[in-house]
Amino acid sequence: MCRWIAYRGQTIALEHYVTEPAHSLISQSIHALESTAALNGDGFGLGWYGQHPEPGLYREVRPAWSDENLRYLCRHLRSHLFFAHVRAATGTAITRPNCHPFACGRWLFMHNGFIGSWNRLRRKVEALIPDELYPSRVGTTDSEAVFLAILGAGLIGSVVQADPVAATARVIAELVRLVNEEGYGEPLRFTAALSNGQDLYAFRFAVNDAANSLYYRSERKGVVVVSEPLDSDRSHWTAVPNDSVVIARAGEPVEVVPFLSRRQDAAE
Amino acid sequence: MCRWIAYRGQTIALEHYVTEPAHSLISQSIHALESTAALNGDGFGLGWYGQHPEPGLYREVRPAWSDENLRYLCRHLRSHLFFAHVRAATGTAITRPNCHPFACGRWLFMHNGFIGSWNRLRRKVEALIPDELYPSRVGTTDSEAVFLAILGAGLIGSVVQADPVAATARVIAELVRLVNEEGYGEPLRFTAALSNGQDLYAFRFAVNDAANSLYYRSERKGVVVVSEPLDSDRSHWTAVPNDSVVIARAGEPVEVVPFLSRRQDAAE
Amino acid sequence: MCRWIAYRGQTIALEHYVTEPAHSLISQSIHALESTAALNGDGFGLGWYGQHPEPGLYREVRPAWSDENLRYLCRHLRSHLFFAHVRAATGTAITRPNCHPFACGRWLFMHNGFIGSWNRLRRKVEALIPDELYPSRVGTTDSEAVFLAILGAGLIGSVVQADPVAATARVIAELVRLVNEEGYGEPLRFTAALSNGQDLYAFRFAVNDAANSLYYRSERKGVVVVSEPLDSDRSHWTAVPNDSVVIARAGEPVEVVPFLSRRQDAAE
Amino acid sequence: MCRWIAYRGQTIALEHYVTEPAHSLISQSIHALESTAALNGDGFGLGWYGQHPEPGLYREVRPAWSDENLRYLCRHLRSHLFFAHVRAATGTAITRPNCHPFACGRWLFMHNGFIGSWNRLRRKVEALIPDELYPSRVGTTDSEAVFLAILGAGLIGSVVQADPVAATARVIAELVRLVNEEGYGEPLRFTAALSNGQDLYAFRFAVNDAANSLYYRSERKGVVVVSEPLDSDRSHWTAVPNDSVVIARAGEPVEVVPFLSRRQDAAE
Repeated sequence: MCRWIAYRGQTIALEHYVTEPAHSLISQSIHALESTAALNGDGFGLGWYGQHPEPGLYREVRPAWSDENLRYLCRHLRSHLFFAHVRAATGTAITRPNCHPFACGRWLFMHNGFIGSWNRLRRKVEALIPDELYPSRVGTTDSEAVFLAILGAGLIGSVVQADPVAATARVIAELVRLVNEEGYGEPLRFTAALSNGQDLYAFRFAVNDAANSLYYRSERKGVVVVSEPLDSDRSHWTAVPNDSVVIARAGEPVEVVPFLSRRQDAAE
Repeated sequence: MCRWIAYRGQTIALEHYVTEPAHSLISQSIHALESTAALNGDGFGLGWYGQHPEPGLYREVRPAWSDENLRYLCRHLRSHLFFAHVRAATGTAITRPNCHPFACGRWLFMHNGFIGSWNRLRRKVEALIPDELYPSRVGTTDSEAVFLAILGAGLIGSVVQADPVAATARVIAELVRLVNEEGYGEPLRFTAALSNGQDLYAFRFAVNDAANSLYYRSERKGVVVVSEPLDSDRSHWTAVPNDSVVIARAGEPVEVVPFLSRRQDAAE
Repeated sequence: MCRWIAYRGQTIALEHYVTEPAHSLISQSIHALESTAALNGDGFGLGWYGQHPEPGLYREVRPAWSDENLRYLCRHLRSHLFFAHVRAATGTAITRPNCHPFACGRWLFMHNGFIGSWNRLRRKVEALIPDELYPSRVGTTDSEAVFLAILGAGLIGSVVQADPVAATARVIAELVRLVNEEGYGEPLRFTAALSNGQDLYAFRFAVNDAANSLYYRSERKGVVVVSEPLDSDRSHWTAVPNDSVVIARAGEPVEVVPFLSRRQDAAE
Repeated sequence: MCRWIAYRGQTIALEHYVTEPAHSLISQSIHALESTAALNGDGFGLGWYGQHPEPGLYREVRPAWSDENLRYLCRHLRSHLFFAHVRAATGTAITRPNCHPFACGRWLFMHNGFIGSWNRLRRKVEALIPDELYPSRVGTTDSEAVFLAILGAGLIGSVVQADPVAATARVIAELVRLVNEEGYGEPLRFTAALSNGQDLYAFRFAVNDAANSLYYRSERKGVVVVSEPLDSDRSHWTAVPNDSVVIARAGEPVEVVPFLSRRQDAAE
């Protein structure tokens, strides 16, 4: 189980949320509270949007807590929309391409969760990636495969007209079908963030298992979505219900709407 | 274009061939002579057999020339059969799982070459890997995919009865078909070493392109097969002809026999 | 606070103690029990003696728990005398030269402890290193400085006639003086292992503070000295008292003798 | 011999000079032209000033040419004053703290050169660092020691009133004395850049040896100082004479003035 944070709002230094808070993402890399894996020391990553339409990435295989580059970058990088992630690997190699976030064109994605029996289902999930995006498969995680499948489900080409929630729903519905086929009932946990540089989408979903925690906080300055609260004042933070998506579009109030509820899954 | 060395014979310290000779593999990492890429600084690896039936691996993303661990290991590791490889990446990420050699069960493999238009052919090559071996696909190189395809073509199960040359020929013939399909005529270079811990096989082959260089030297102590000679006395070294395989079985003299000659390919 | 293990005895594979036991050093890197730092994720190292008189070293800045090279090496490296160490840094950089063990000539050393107010005392401690050994100062830790000071206190030159306990006592007595000068009373913890490739010495000492834990176990096969027991059966393990040194000379029974008792310090 | 580039002027993306030009610093890491070491693959670093008074740093032990993080950062980091450096180590370890640039407070420094017989002179050079700055000695290079000695020679405290050229001259004159003492005549090469975030100083100096190359180019947008030209049109670039300093103060035209000429050294 990984820990992550996503921010959209006024342009701020990344340190504001990544390194400075009492229970910052860096602290969570050493001792997460609401996670089966207290330790998130299997690499980390930053993804951020600036003046260039495509996001920047900084990913490393060392633990976040001891990376002096990360502290400098969080102090100096300023962004209106950024992701940060600390990893607890669930079987795939500790390499930079396996660290989150993942970037492709204008899109940025990160994930906390897993697909049960990945070794058995991997080929079926990779088959969801269209040929034109397969060269972008530079790592071996389930998360990257799901990201590329989502991009392939309608987000390539026109960024403006794309519907990220619908594309994600199509792919996750297919994953639900895969984990349930032949009566297996494998667990699927999908707590993820997706952005095109303007709008931020954060999903909390699971089947055959409990969903990984997700919280958000909406302030004058912007919205921040997190795996677990960055401070001990829980009243600041709203827990995102299971099977929901947080939609934080530029210039619009934050919305939390149902996402592929289990009842729907059953019906599909 | 990478550089590599393989040894089978009496048990010796790896330094004997990897770090000590005038034009050692380490020197070749900085300045190879018979290669389009003079520089092989994109990671390196050692693979060796000892008392355990499965080989050991040491792979790193840093250049071989500056890795102090490598010098210590080459001095202290002793083996009757080992591989060493310095990498010049041809497009895939610089990660440990993408560094050669690759190990799976008792088998060890390394490669110098490439498959043209890898991005276009990748899925077709990966489809040659049987399901049971697909979890062993931990990197993203063409080389690892070819290795697992070869293992799948008859080397799993009984190591004793396996025919590594026949299995390799089956896979390479299929690759020849793939690079030539639809009239593409993509280049394919395959200069590779394969071992089960007892016997050593080294291939030199290409279609639609010149084959990467390969030499060997047979001494009382053992046989060493290399991308390019380790010293300036060329008389010690025998150049391996195109479309050949060097067979160095335990307790038998070294043989060089034809491997999938182009004429054969055309007929197939 | 780091965790370490040292072994002297029959030649065995390192995995026997480093990776395999229930509470192996690898487990301790993730969750040490008898330490103020439960997490030892700031690099690690192996040092071992083989056929060459000088020891081999493998040190890495990544956490031990995720290093695939470490698992291969522990399976394949066999030694009659080896050290392994997982690091929890106390302020100095996470670099390979700052990882333990440290090697110089035939000597190997590793440490769990610290010198209080290192920034203030560093120059005075470095001044204890003789000029001829100062080029061997390739890192910046207090541990490496203490090691080189010990070597300089009588261990250079004839390995045979050297008295490692006396040399260590001379340097530690000087450190005791330094931490106490001007009435500071800085803490000094020194739980360390030292070897020349034949004999193993393990120290447990502290002033102005509690000493870090140390245990040993003497078996037919050999003696193993550890920061904390490798399994839950405490009856196998003997706790080393404060201000003691474990002496495990080749061919002699293990002895535990007093080392610079505090009463002595006060008198000096 | 390393290669470096320094820029002061309008705020631009770092990629403009670091990764994009025909003979960019990245190209020079693989194949420098005016250097005894064609290869600069022993780590690299970026230092830059932004809104924070202290500079940011990104340093890595991998070669610059294969670091995907570097490409993202050079595209996204924008600065009015930045340094970039690719390293060819001359004996000290390949660690992040040994990579250039070095930062301390508001100051940034990088170096191409060396002090002859560093092992013999190291303690004398380190003795030039004042006690208050010795905790900032986190690596082991001659370059970092010289930087801290320069800071100690008058640049601590008031940044405004500091005279960086005078401080540097004091330290280099002392180094000249050290390399010449006892008739040794050791070589000393010092081609370095220093900045406080507003002004840029670049030195080219040597005794008992040829000075490493240095060029600059002054444009409407700003001034760029380099080890060797970034393109093949040499008419854009002015070679800096031996024993000179390029002074590029904010809001003032670039000046090149003599720095510790050899005649002066002899007289001192």
